[in-house]
Amino acid sequence: MAQRITLKHVAAQAGVSYQTVSKVLNKQVQVSKETEERIMEAVRILGYRPNQVARNLRTQRARLIGYTWAPTPSDQVNTILDQFLQSMSQAAESSGYHVLCFPHYFGQETIPAYRDLIDTQRVDAFVISSVEDNDPRITFLQERGFPFVAFGRSNPEWEFPYVDVDGADGMRRVTEHLLGLGHRRIAALAWPEASRVGRNRMEGYLGAMQSAGITPLPGWIQRGEGNFKFGLEAAAAILDQPAGQRPTAIVAFNDYMAIGALRAAQERGLQVGVDVAITGFDDIPMVQYLTPALTSLRQPIWDIGQRVISILLEILDNTQPTDPHVLLAPQLVIRQSSNAVASA
Amino acid sequence: MAQRITLKHVAAQAGVSYQTVSKVLNKQVQVSKETEERIMEAVRILGYRPNQVARNLRTQRARLIGYTWAPTPSDQVNTILDQFLQSMSQAAESSGYHVLCFPHYFGQETIPAYRDLIDTQRVDAFVISSVEDNDPRITFLQERGFPFVAFGRSNPEWEFPYVDVDGADGMRRVTEHLLGLGHRRIAALAWPEASRVGRNRMEGYLGAMQSAGITPLPGWIQRGEGNFKFGLEAAAAILDQPAGQRPTAIVAFNDYMAIGALRAAQERGLQVGVDVAITGFDDIPMVQYLTPALTSLRQPIWDIGQRVISILLEILDNTQPTDPHVLLAPQLVIRQSSNAVASA
Repeated sequence: MAQRITLKHVAAQAGVSYQTVSKVLNKQVQVSKETEERIMEAVRILGYRPNQVARNLRTQRARLIGYTWAPTPSDQVNTILDQFLQSMSQAAESSGYHVLCFPHYFGQETIPAYRDLIDTQRVDAFVISSVEDNDPRITFLQERGFPFVAFGRSNPEWEFPYVDVDGADGMRRVTEHLLGLGHRRIAALAWPEASRVGRNRMEGYLGAMQSAGITPLPGWIQRGEGNFKFGLEAAAAILDQPAGQRPTAIVAFNDYMAIGALRAAQERGLQVGVDVAITGFDDIPMVQYLTPALTSLRQPIWDIGQRVISILLEILDNTQPTDPHVLLAPQLVIRQSSNAVASA
Repeated sequence: MAQRITLKHVAAQAGVSYQTVSKVLNKQVQVSKETEERIMEAVRILGYRPNQVARNLRTQRARLIGYTWAPTPSDQVNTILDQFLQSMSQAAESSGYHVLCFPHYFGQETIPAYRDLIDTQRVDAFVISSVEDNDPRITFLQERGFPFVAFGRSNPEWEFPYVDVDGADGMRRVTEHLLGLGHRRIAALAWPEASRVGRNRMEGYLGAMQSAGITPLPGWIQRGEGNFKFGLEAAAAILDQPAGQRPTAIVAFNDYMAIGALRAAQERGLQVGVDVAITGFDDIPMVQYLTPALTSLRQPIWDIGQRVISILLEILDNTQPTDPHVLLAPQLVIRQSSNAVASA
């Protein structure tokens, strides 16, 4: 079990006295903005949780874990919510906790909803998902010393408990699968560089290519929104290259892009799985019914829900989590869209 | 506003005295099983809620609405959960309520989970979905006098508040759409007769056919599980009939069956939308990306969530709901799978 982080560790990290940290965190003194920021940064990096919160938690609890999520656009479907909520609810119930759903208002700051639930003592902890770089929820919850676990990673230097899918591992394995079939010119439909999840997946693709001694040509990597329309257009650009030159395989960073790519190939009279291999990521249940059925990577959603709650229960139990950083590998599901030896 | 149902109404309906009803409901007397059942039936039919509950509600409230759902099989996806939960959460929050998710254990009796949440005063009310005929949750909650609203209907003679999609209306309109394109031999992929939702949808199909003076031949209506495999096999049986005789259109009672039918048609070299029209129901977001894109009926999930909570808040506010039985029409979305004039 890791050492418990105390005020003294925070003080050492921030280069101020123990008393200053205590007073600043309890809002009993005003210090310079620069000092306050240094202290807050130390709180974040070390993952410090004030004892006050721990004391409160021991006494009066709502036994509720707050959760909300960014609603899925109407042309897509949230394929993980059902299993994720059921898994969390089941894991929480065994310790007398339930999951409280609260609404997510699009285009509005998310913090007020979290603050309100804390201030009204409505919940004891949060699970956050769709985590971004510099996610303001992490900063806010750590400053409040309020327990949470993230489904997803954020800034590497930030210390907080999370469970995440190992996207690099998944993308590495699907790329290796294609290399094993003899593909060399493997293109990628990726998200913009700002996407943290996209960077993880890109790392796996590039790693596998590099290990095979292949440097992707500039036109092979297309970046855009992870939807059908982008997949269609980007795959069109890739497939419109001359035959001996165009990629023989396309790895898409999610299933929607892959479905767009399927359509682009079919519009060009290419037989997917024979003339060109196409793979997705997420294994949306419906992709097995496409013609041809799509190779994809399935996220271990049930396990993620179980692990998220198990870490949270450790924190609520006032113990340091035994394993606060969990990466789970997705499962490669090979289907007709990529099961033939490379043709060109 | 409807008249408030009192003990006297229940007594009159059950043919017993006011005192007997009161004592039975308060468990102060033992009567014959037959009398008790008659009283409980009257409670159900009239939708009576004991005042005791109303009094309790006025005093101590968790301000939580319990909800669970039957998890979707892993080869399908719950396409409504995201929007339904967000809509309910948002509607509830304006009155200080939140949605509490509790786990659904497959293959186990569901009542204990509901009973437990009532007994521990964890929730003030429930929303129930996937409602069946003789749904034991309705019987249980009415006997406990505990507030709930259903997404879905049950036995017609039972009186309880619900919001539902008007499946008959939707299926009538999609059948009329096909009739309008000149189709006469229209087959249906339906659920078993025991399915209440299936009966509603069948009513719409048969009604439209009857209005057009067409009696479906025996082979036109296929019944089975609402999944891809059944759709594939049932459509194969339909499409393997001789050309001048086989149906030129197939209405499926959900999208999964329709996707199976698409595959069956494609395997037979039939061009869907030209040689045969195929339609679905539910408008799963992905069906717009199929080749050809699928005509379907979209359920007004956001509105359903709003109406369910609005009725529940009236009940929790101790007023009779102004409109306790709401049917909302689905939206017909016409796409390539059924946009051509009938060919045969």
